[in-house]
Amino acid sequence: MVDTMNARNTQFTKAFHALKQNAGSHSPSMEDLKKMFPTLEIKIDACYLSNPYASELVLDYIDRELIQTNAYKKVLTHYPSQQRSLQKVMAESLHVKPENIFIGNGATEIIQMLLQQEEVQKVALMIPTFSSYYEFVGKGCEVVYFPLNERDDYSFDADKYCQFIENEQPDTVVLINPNNPNGAYLSLEKMHILLKRLAFVPRIIIDESFIHFAYEDEALTCLSSTVLFDMYPNVIIVKSLSKDFGIAGVRLGYALMDSRKIDALLEHGFLWNINGIGEYCLRLFVREDFLKRYEEARKQYIKEMCRFKEALLGIENVYVYPSMANFVMLKLPSRIKASFVISALLVEYGIYVRTMADKIGVEGECIRIAGRTREENNCIVMALKSILKDSK
Amino acid sequence: MVDTMNARNTQFTKAFHALKQNAGSHSPSMEDLKKMFPTLEIKIDACYLSNPYASELVLDYIDRELIQTNAYKKVLTHYPSQQRSLQKVMAESLHVKPENIFIGNGATEIIQMLLQQEEVQKVALMIPTFSSYYEFVGKGCEVVYFPLNERDDYSFDADKYCQFIENEQPDTVVLINPNNPNGAYLSLEKMHILLKRLAFVPRIIIDESFIHFAYEDEALTCLSSTVLFDMYPNVIIVKSLSKDFGIAGVRLGYALMDSRKIDALLEHGFLWNINGIGEYCLRLFVREDFLKRYEEARKQYIKEMCRFKEALLGIENVYVYPSMANFVMLKLPSRIKASFVISALLVEYGIYVRTMADKIGVEGECIRIAGRTREENNCIVMALKSILKDSK
Repeated sequence: MVDTMNARNTQFTKAFHALKQNAGSHSPSMEDLKKMFPTLEIKIDACYLSNPYASELVLDYIDRELIQTNAYKKVLTHYPSQQRSLQKVMAESLHVKPENIFIGNGATEIIQMLLQQEEVQKVALMIPTFSSYYEFVGKGCEVVYFPLNERDDYSFDADKYCQFIENEQPDTVVLINPNNPNGAYLSLEKMHILLKRLAFVPRIIIDESFIHFAYEDEALTCLSSTVLFDMYPNVIIVKSLSKDFGIAGVRLGYALMDSRKIDALLEHGFLWNINGIGEYCLRLFVREDFLKRYEEARKQYIKEMCRFKEALLGIENVYVYPSMANFVMLKLPSRIKASFVISALLVEYGIYVRTMADKIGVEGECIRIAGRTREENNCIVMALKSILKDSK
Repeated sequence: MVDTMNARNTQFTKAFHALKQNAGSHSPSMEDLKKMFPTLEIKIDACYLSNPYASELVLDYIDRELIQTNAYKKVLTHYPSQQRSLQKVMAESLHVKPENIFIGNGATEIIQMLLQQEEVQKVALMIPTFSSYYEFVGKGCEVVYFPLNERDDYSFDADKYCQFIENEQPDTVVLINPNNPNGAYLSLEKMHILLKRLAFVPRIIIDESFIHFAYEDEALTCLSSTVLFDMYPNVIIVKSLSKDFGIAGVRLGYALMDSRKIDALLEHGFLWNINGIGEYCLRLFVREDFLKRYEEARKQYIKEMCRFKEALLGIENVYVYPSMANFVMLKLPSRIKASFVISALLVEYGIYVRTMADKIGVEGECIRIAGRTREENNCIVMALKSILKDSK
């Protein structure tokens, strides 16, 4: 059975590999996939990471407020507002001063901007991590890696880590919480302990792009590190708005940082970096009526993620790493190639998941699956079970 | 009469001034204006510079292909394609190799990126000019200014200019053609002569954001400097796509430059800098069916611009600077303050035009008016005539 499937997907695997090479350490977009494989029908996108229930909600607002009213025409043809105005929009909702907010064309623009400051000369990263954090560093910047241990589920040992930072003396430390690609979460309490010990580091970037999917109580109260930004002067918060609100095509994110830094940045650029739809979304995301419904969509998604993770745990011979994010990293039995499973999922079932082959610091044959709606998650579990059963 | 109007708009002028200060050397957005003056009805936006006939055309496509089909939902919720794919989209249409194309989140992102390269240490600008060219230079970069002469209608003397460049030896020269804010145009023939003399300059940035509104023959054939990029190795082309295609809210522009430079840039950033609607537009702008209709919209607009300029020339005591762009700079009689006319247009007629008070190198009381549709242009001319007559 494996041989038949192998035959069917070998050609695909090769072609996909070429496409992947082109996309570097990220995944080929749906558009590129469709162009290369016109007959391929992607039914479920479990590669990119976003809350489908939130997408639905935002689209409902866009439909009623931009499309049905024709307001989208102005949004697309007029210049959007500049940073100074958008800062004020976010300030109240985040309980932060406007001058401490930098709005970005997606979190990637912010990461690029932060890492390419001339004062960033040595960056400490845990691995595995989001590749942009080492790819986007400026010329001459050194990157030191703290490898997370597979045996500890890529969770992290604060003592060892602080020793590492003390020894290496980086000027910039990056903490992604929950971490990408494994989803390990550091509680707010542990974060406080860590930040107190790392007070000597000039800059600590906390990327909380997936924080809306983590929880510390049964009520699934929304977590936020704004309090960390207030308490620790060396903390910079980075947050994508694509994942939690499900709008990757809009490009939107923000950072909380020193106002003098933001002043300097705005004096020399970032003039109209947010597009019209992005501005609409930003103004939407702080509205009470929206936030009330968003909270429901967020909690519904977290509950579905819990159910999905349970179901994945039920698949024989697959290891599921603990995750508090909206994705799960799985380790396959070593005799099964991840590239095979990825191709089989795509070719046989139209399910697009993420290879971990390009992730430095990941051991073994791993794939990362983003959580989707209940129906889609059920399809993913069924497809995985079937592929793994056939390849026994 | 002037006194009555003055009384009516003094308060407005002050409040507008505060808003303008906040927006730096650019104009407050419509959204900001409406927030500060909720009763103000802006009927005609003649401040921002874009072809309204092209806006209409692009919106027609978006309506049919994205909205009516619901395809916009995918466009907003999925990740857009990366640079490497978008380069290929544009390459064929521009007759340039993909690797020489850099797609930007608006021309401002490109200008920022170009000027902040470490090899850019001394930039030569003609003034008046688009302010981002001196605001976005990197730390420690020197800017030298070649003042265009009011008596020559801010057109430029190639001999004097080349002498200036020879003396100053900048590493980067910026030529905006047609120039902003005055609209003076340098013919392709003169550009060739100039570029041959400036072969010793390491980098010449030609910003052709308004080139679609210029013409050299009666057929109004579309001009392009791609040929200059091919012929002169030191030439970099920058082009906004917001003006000609009328989609300022989408944020889209491109640059033609050395492929090695682009490779280096993409290795360290600019990962998903184009949003989903931007990607749709980019793919639209190279389609034959679209381009055919666009050419009609472009020519219709140029013809209307000619008629509009003629009508402005008919206003007594106002000097109209020659322009090949889609805007016109006017000099008012010295006894009339530009701020007064701008406020009167906005408060009395709902017409939003651009002050030149913050433009270094502009002499006298000037305003800049963007061309709009025939009906709107007629309103602008009537309003101006009336305001200037009343203030005699």
